[in-house]
Parts: sequence; C-alpha cells; structure tokens
Amino acid sequence: MFLGGVGRIMSVLGFLGPNGTHSEEAAIYMNTLLGNNWVLKPYRSIYEAIAAADEGEADCCFVPVENSIEGSVRITLDTLAHDVDLKINMELVWAVHNQLLVKDSREKITKLISHPQALAQCRKYIKMNYSAAELVEVSSTAHAAEVVAAGMKNAAAIASKRSADIYNLTVLDKDIQDNCDNVTRFILLSKTTSSINKTDPEKTMLICQMDGSKAGSLCDVLAEFAKYNINMTHIESRPTRMQLGRYMFFFEVEVPLDGRERLIKAIAAVKKKCFWLKDMGLFPVIKAENKKWR
Amino acid sequence: MFLGGVGRIMSVLGFLGPNGTHSEEAAIYMNTLLGNNWVLKPYRSIYEAIAAADEGEADCCFVPVENSIEGSVRITLDTLAHDVDLKINMELVWAVHNQLLVKDSREKITKLISHPQALAQCRKYIKMNYSAAELVEVSSTAHAAEVVAAGMKNAAAIASKRSADIYNLTVLDKDIQDNCDNVTRFILLSKTTSSINKTDPEKTMLICQMDGSKAGSLCDVLAEFAKYNINMTHIESRPTRMQLGRYMFFFEVEVPLDGRERLIKAIAAVKKKCFWLKDMGLFPVIKAENKKWR
Repeated sequence: MFLGGVGRIMSVLGFLGPNGTHSEEAAIYMNTLLGNNWVLKPYRSIYEAIAAADEGEADCCFVPVENSIEGSVRITLDTLAHDVDLKINMELVWAVHNQLLVKDSREKITKLISHPQALAQCRKYIKMNYSAAELVEVSSTAHAAEVVAAGMKNAAAIASKRSADIYNLTVLDKDIQDNCDNVTRFILLSKTTSSINKTDPEKTMLICQMDGSKAGSLCDVLAEFAKYNINMTHIESRPTRMQLGRYMFFFEVEVPLDGRERLIKAIAAVKKKCFWLKDMGLFPVIKAENKKWR
Repeated sequence: MFLGGVGRIMSVLGFLGPNGTHSEEAAIYMNTLLGNNWVLKPYRSIYEAIAAADEGEADCCFVPVENSIEGSVRITLDTLAHDVDLKINMELVWAVHNQLLVKDSREKITKLISHPQALAQCRKYIKMNYSAAELVEVSSTAHAAEVVAAGMKNAAAIASKRSADIYNLTVLDKDIQDNCDNVTRFILLSKTTSSINKTDPEKTMLICQMDGSKAGSLCDVLAEFAKYNINMTHIESRPTRMQLGRYMFFFEVEVPLDGRERLIKAIAAVKKKCFWLKDMGLFPVIKAENKKWR
C-alpha cells in the first residue's frame, strides 16, 4: 500500500464515466490496490476529469494516456500541455478486453456501436465478421452498452465485461480486439508529487517545444538524452495548434536505477534547447495483475 | 496542369464520402486544378478509399494525412504502413473552414453533431458557446449535416459550407475552428510514381521500424539525416499494434534543392539502421489558393 498516504489525503478521484467504462474498471482496481481511500466520481469527458483535478473540484484524476493498438490519447496529452498544471503520480498498465454485447442474441447485427478508440482496436475483427455493418461512434464504451440496452434495433455494443453486467447484456463474443496485447496505460494526476516521491519512481514525462524551423533540433535534444545515457520509452509529436508544421514533443524517459542525478542533468540540458519545457514529475509504474497480459 | 499526364491515365479517384465532406471539397478543387480528368467516387471510410486504390478498383485515392490542429490522421498512416503498397503522388494543403449548421435557427441547440476530428478542431468554440451541449460523433461532417437536415431536434452540425448547400441548412456561425490556421494536408495515392517524378518533388515520406529495445536508436537515425543535411518537416510515432512500447516512425523530409543525391544516400543509411523501411516516393506539394491561409 505504498501510496496509502496519498489515498488518505485525497478523497475524490475523477475518471471518464459513465459507470461501466474500461476507465472505471481500472480505477476500481487501483482504488482497491491502494486501500479504497477514494470516492470515484465519473466525468463526462477526459477533459472535464482533468480540469476537475486542476481546479480542485476533485483531488485527483485517473485518465488513459496510451493504448498499445490505437496509440496516444490525444485529448489527455493536449490538455496536460495546454490547459492545466498537474503532476503524474503513478502509471497503471491495464489489459483491455473488448466484448461484443447484445440485448437479443437472435437478432441480426447491422450496427456496431462504441467509442472510436474501441472500434479502432477491433478493426480486423469487424472487417472479418461485420464488414457491412454501420459503425456508430459514441462518447464511451459504457454509453454504447446503454444505447443497446435501451433497445436500439439490430445493434451490438463493443464494451467491457462490466458494462454487460451493469446493463444486463449478453456477451456474444469476447476478446475481439485485434491482438491479445491490447493494453492501456492510465495515469493518476494531482496538483503535487510530494507524497509519491517517497516510493520508487521509474519514469518521467517531459513536454516541450523546440525551434522547429531549425534543421536537426530534435536530433540535438535526443543527443542530450543519449549523452547522459537516459533511455526513452516513448516519443510523441503533437501540433502546437497554432501553425501547420509546428510541433510540441512528449518524451517519456526512464529514471536511471543508479540514481536521479544523470536524469536531472539531462533534463536541464534539454531545457536549454527548448522554447519551453514542462516537467510532469517522477512516478512509479504498476502493472495490473488481475488480467492476462504480457 | 503539370499532372495532366497522370490525370489522363487515371479515371476514378476515391475519397472519403459522402458528398459534402471537406475531403470532397478539396478533391473537387484538385480535380479542377489538374484538368478534370477524374471521376470522383465517394467511399464509406478512409480505409476503404485507400484499399480501393491498392486493389485497382479505383485508379488513385485522395485522403487526409494531417490536420494542423488535431494532428495526424491515424487510419491513413496505419493503412499505408500495414495494409497496402502505394506511393504518394502529391500533397495538397487545404484550409478547412468549419461552419455551425442548423435547420431552424429559432431552435435551442442542445446537441452538436460532427466527425470527431471536427469536434476536436472546435473544442474552444464549443466550450465557450455550448459547454452544456451533448456531443454526438458520426462518421463524417457531411453525415452530420444529413442527420440535422433529416430533422434531429435541437441539433446543430459542424460541417463544410458545401454541406450547407447540399442539405439546405442555415449557417448559424462560420469559421468556428479553434484558430484561423486550420489546415489539412491531403495526399494523392496510386500504385506508381512514374509520371509524377517528371515534376519537381519537394518531399518524401519514409515509414520504418528500428530496434526500440536499444537506447538511442531513434537518435542514431536522426543523426543520419543531420549528417546529410536533410531537413525533417514531421516525425510521427505509431504503435506497431503488436506490443506495448514498440513503435514505427513516419518521417517526412524535404528533397534538397541542390539535387536528390544526398537524400538517396541518407535514405540508404537510415535503412541500414532499421528492421524495415517503406519509401513512399517523392512528391510535389501544392498549396490551395482559393482560401485564406498562411
């Protein structure tokens, strides 16, 4: 229970609702793991969950940042870069299991309804089995289950097992994602990092913008990480939203096992080569153990 | 009409339908620019438009690859990397103007309906003006206009001017995207590059995967571009869809003004440092001149 201290201070944890989403499944798991100190509060969107933690309406929030099939969750990255001042307290690696849910298993399926990310995670399955079906995108996997439960004709939802339980739907097909390694990384965000730094942090995230008009500016920055022998686990570019061809970068790097000194030096060196740099703090990585995953 | 030769050979151009999408607007512009040699054929999804060009059902296709606000179009990148063998023949830079369209301007708006990319491009406007509205995601901006025209109550579509004309809707508010520099890059794809290489190519796209388990492998590749003084205009990472933490990269680089020799050497050097590399061909960049843009 190494985050128990934080759990006791924090009381409201925001997540992407409604109840039944993969986010809720993962948030329940994390809350149990850390001693059930939080009251879970669903928000209508990832943006609103993050903003609530930033504005103090929630003590922290728990949002997806990357899926192994569909890639980074852009609204999370963009909100962290542009709109709020939060730190990452931990990462949870969560195996996602998508199910095909129906109300009446005798009905022919002509519509598949889900969140765009879940539809994208199941592209191959859909092409193989329901290539003629209309794809209906909604705001969450749980909402898709809700719509099917409400009686939409000839429709199947792609959603979590928990959604099937909540909305009393039949699982027609399970684990329909494109491969068995469908994993989502969630991050826990709050205003501070203080309590967490007592545990063993494994990673940090840096958000920055270089002078993109200069050839080789990204290469120069990566060379600093290489110079200090810092291993990068992920790089993502996102538009600055101001001008075509101008990007900001998200670097996730490992904390060296032999101490943080090299990392601190590398960050300082990188910062000198950037217009601006946002340090998201050091955090531990926890791998959920209740599911099959690699 | 420097692509006229290609236009005469090619007869069917696939794009993301239905009629009225931003893609159709841009495809009509390009077709006019190049001598109206193509019959435009709408496809239900970007994937299907690209697959049609790959399988010979269409002679070429015209799909979005990046938006200046929302970023890369992932389905385009993933399909190019995994599923087809096509070359980029040209790029068109297109200013996107999102409009708020309604059937009856006296009705209160409680629902905003559009493609997820368009909703994302207008995040700030929505937050300022319709923060309580329900966001409804559909498969295209044109389909959103169609739904509103069909009589959905209290709903407004975010779509193109052309959609307003086609579906006889009222423009309640125009240019509602988050900033004035909302630009989409489209690419024209076909099986060959031969005819196009006679024109002046400005860029190329390379797709590759390095040994991500080796620290500094991305840095090594970027160093090759730097060594040959090749300017990179965009880098994008995408999951390989096989395992969390394994990525492929999309590099867009400029063709040197003083000849292609350095570029060819750089590509050969980069290829040696990759598991695999896919060269998407050299292509010219055309900036659409019928719209305000930077």
